[in-house]
Amino acid sequence: MQSKPFIVAGREIRSRLMLGTGKFSSGEKMRAALDASGGEIVTVALRRADLSGKKDPFANILEFIPADKYLLLPNTSGAMNAEEAVRLARLAVAAGLPNWVKLEIHPDPRYLLPDPVETLKAAEVLVKEGFVVLPYINADPVLAKRLQDVGTATVMPLGSPIGSHQGITTRKQIEIIIEQASVPVVVDAGIGAPSHAAEALEMGADAVLVNTAIAVAGDPVRMAQAFKMAVEAGRAAYEIGLADASERASATSPLGAFLNS
Amino acid sequence: MQSKPFIVAGREIRSRLMLGTGKFSSGEKMRAALDASGGEIVTVALRRADLSGKKDPFANILEFIPADKYLLLPNTSGAMNAEEAVRLARLAVAAGLPNWVKLEIHPDPRYLLPDPVETLKAAEVLVKEGFVVLPYINADPVLAKRLQDVGTATVMPLGSPIGSHQGITTRKQIEIIIEQASVPVVVDAGIGAPSHAAEALEMGADAVLVNTAIAVAGDPVRMAQAFKMAVEAGRAAYEIGLADASERASATSPLGAFLNS
Amino acid sequence: MQSKPFIVAGREIRSRLMLGTGKFSSGEKMRAALDASGGEIVTVALRRADLSGKKDPFANILEFIPADKYLLLPNTSGAMNAEEAVRLARLAVAAGLPNWVKLEIHPDPRYLLPDPVETLKAAEVLVKEGFVVLPYINADPVLAKRLQDVGTATVMPLGSPIGSHQGITTRKQIEIIIEQASVPVVVDAGIGAPSHAAEALEMGADAVLVNTAIAVAGDPVRMAQAFKMAVEAGRAAYEIGLADASERASATSPLGAFLNS
Amino acid sequence: MQSKPFIVAGREIRSRLMLGTGKFSSGEKMRAALDASGGEIVTVALRRADLSGKKDPFANILEFIPADKYLLLPNTSGAMNAEEAVRLARLAVAAGLPNWVKLEIHPDPRYLLPDPVETLKAAEVLVKEGFVVLPYINADPVLAKRLQDVGTATVMPLGSPIGSHQGITTRKQIEIIIEQASVPVVVDAGIGAPSHAAEALEMGADAVLVNTAIAVAGDPVRMAQAFKMAVEAGRAAYEIGLADASERASATSPLGAFLNS
Repeated sequence: MQSKPFIVAGREIRSRLMLGTGKFSSGEKMRAALDASGGEIVTVALRRADLSGKKDPFANILEFIPADKYLLLPNTSGAMNAEEAVRLARLAVAAGLPNWVKLEIHPDPRYLLPDPVETLKAAEVLVKEGFVVLPYINADPVLAKRLQDVGTATVMPLGSPIGSHQGITTRKQIEIIIEQASVPVVVDAGIGAPSHAAEALEMGADAVLVNTAIAVAGDPVRMAQAFKMAVEAGRAAYEIGLADASERASATSPLGAFLNS
Repeated sequence: MQSKPFIVAGREIRSRLMLGTGKFSSGEKMRAALDASGGEIVTVALRRADLSGKKDPFANILEFIPADKYLLLPNTSGAMNAEEAVRLARLAVAAGLPNWVKLEIHPDPRYLLPDPVETLKAAEVLVKEGFVVLPYINADPVLAKRLQDVGTATVMPLGSPIGSHQGITTRKQIEIIIEQASVPVVVDAGIGAPSHAAEALEMGADAVLVNTAIAVAGDPVRMAQAFKMAVEAGRAAYEIGLADASERASATSPLGAFLNS
Repeated sequence: MQSKPFIVAGREIRSRLMLGTGKFSSGEKMRAALDASGGEIVTVALRRADLSGKKDPFANILEFIPADKYLLLPNTSGAMNAEEAVRLARLAVAAGLPNWVKLEIHPDPRYLLPDPVETLKAAEVLVKEGFVVLPYINADPVLAKRLQDVGTATVMPLGSPIGSHQGITTRKQIEIIIEQASVPVVVDAGIGAPSHAAEALEMGADAVLVNTAIAVAGDPVRMAQAFKMAVEAGRAAYEIGLADASERASATSPLGAFLNS
Repeated sequence: MQSKPFIVAGREIRSRLMLGTGKFSSGEKMRAALDASGGEIVTVALRRADLSGKKDPFANILEFIPADKYLLLPNTSGAMNAEEAVRLARLAVAAGLPNWVKLEIHPDPRYLLPDPVETLKAAEVLVKEGFVVLPYINADPVLAKRLQDVGTATVMPLGSPIGSHQGITTRKQIEIIIEQASVPVVVDAGIGAPSHAAEALEMGADAVLVNTAIAVAGDPVRMAQAFKMAVEAGRAAYEIGLADASERASATSPLGAFLNS
């Protein structure tokens, strides 16, 4: 299989590893990790971006993400419903940010799981207003299909709850989402180890988004490199084609005549 | 954590990816894949090596594995019991091959699973004769401990049956083996995808051995590169330290005051 | 823990095994299996019930489900959207069926996965009209919470796709649903073996719904008995309390002084 | 499939649930739980049985296991090697216990995992001396085959480490053991919940042995009943035949013409 480019909303993206920017211990560490990751799409919580010019000590987060190098993907993390998410996205554009938005609506403070109904509602509004919408969703194949029908640029099903590092506990559902997808599928949330990222790509996901596993690592730069390699490895394996698991062993060496010389 | 070298029998090995040589479609393809893998230890079935100077069309397999570049690890694949395995190992040394041996004794033609009793018996004999012994075993922590006590250079528990591509179905047992090990642990057999290799290294295995997944791939060279990256990614993650999976989500962005500007 | 009754919409249900009625080879076999199951709630596709008095050869399905013995739970299987589901439910009541409804909306013919948005919409309408609504949903904790907030009598997350017999592949999500639930949680779809049913109950699900695994079994009556026992076993274990899995072994016999007599 | 009897060493056993006797809080509770389980084969650690007539406060354990009701299966738990195990078994016979022995040799105090080499060695001796030998082993198909070839009455692979309640983490290996077995396969150790027991039987195991999960339960009698039901359910499902899991959903109701009346 020829290496197929990863295209989101008509733009070719050079890396299949998307990065989040929460939880880094400093802006400098974040910048170095982003750099090491080779990533292009970087998501920032709109609440944290300095839209107002004051307040948050880390509010200058955007200074650490050079616009000529990264595609900034504002996210609506913290929005409890469609209305809040839409309002945030509009504020971002008004403040000069790109009109790409990672749509995150999670009313649930404990597991931060996304709300399917509000997400679809917000997506409809934002797509109509010209936003490039990348919605974060539960691994729900029907919802994924509805979102792509509405015109979202990707779907981003979760592997497991945000920050849980459980890997892809929703494998069966994500396989169906990939099978039905007409837009890129990005596995988001729960990716806690390079092997999880590789697995997502091997399954045929177009990309993964990783945040906590890199941000809180003892060495974020080296961990970013590890994820970069894992993503490339997983994608290569997918493009080359992996054999299905089989019940039978299969001798790696012919087992015929032996020692009869 | 400082990057710890991978040392087998006192020799530092530069790559944590060991390669098998069965099932390649040609010697040239094999050589190119070995090259791309960055691997150093390469195992060859003694039955296939040209010990006699005739017979097997692929008998010149050793010509494709330059001795200055690779550490040749003859294996006893096909041996049904300790006696056959020991005999094979001695023949190899007599023929000028190194005295390292991957000990494989599998009386079972269907799943090629290793025999614990014969393997221990052969290991005792070969260690006494000065061989560097790397035994292929079921994921049996007690057997692993007995083998290292006998003086084997590594233990090589299987992830799943040879050639089955099922990945690490024996995870719990391998975790115990790693916890108890005083010699390197190499996960052998069943590694069918880069994510499996990364997982083994993330668990703390010292290396993996991969054969079929590379040898029968549509593009063995590129697949070898993919495994190389996955192994490096998994090892890096292990050295940096991975968070345990948790039941709870953990917000990547502070969820406090919101949109109150 | 005292044995807690299973109450749906104020009615105490004597069995935690709900039954589906599709795919039986005859009405007689179905009746015998229902009988053997000890089940009380039995779901019937409204399209199959003889609302019109003609057509379907198996349209007299209701004759095999005595109203004094079973609580008939009409389902809207086949509905593609909220409107169709609501219309079906109203027709059923008009035809004299109970106002309990298992809400199933699956626009997707391949995996029959439920539509979260249409399901919530239909639930809102039907609850307002006085229906007792038991919605079939993906294992989506946020949706489950919204539905119970709307006033549904239960939530019925899927274990895996209908008729797939894969068991509970959505375990993590269902655990969260159970933790958050204020109404009974019934695991529906994918329950292909008694062990799956037992597992659901052990996790704390209030009940399971089983159809295909019984209906297409070589001996539906005996299989129904097997599920009955498994459900009772799983519930008992949950009420008594199961130990968490631990990494360590724990000797079942004291390992102290030995043979020193 | 006709219900096949469970026969060990020519004796038909009425229950597929074997019980262990360690860790009960009193002899009375143990007796009641054994009773409730419907079990016939009950294993007792020889070190605990009152062979000497003094010492252990619980040494009268045999008084709680009426010989006319149960088949007493002495076990060699605590033996570190073949010699100790053989010595224990002989002492038991000398003291008037049956010549059935559950062979347990685990030099490892942490996970209590069995030693394959010593187990085979002891089995050879004991079989020759006329013992009915039921060896506890790792889930190792080659070892299982060697033991049955030596003449053991069963093989008893572990599901996971003793007392860990992890269930069947060795599923793939046990499937191979069952496929190759000419003697009954009893899954021993790790069975922490009724669903685990049902799963073992559904896979085709002939029986399970349960101890800790019942002995330390808040209500051992009720838990014993739960396991009894789960074992019967699992066995019934196996005999009737379970459908394989499939990737596809399968409609339980025909999805054709709809609402067109």
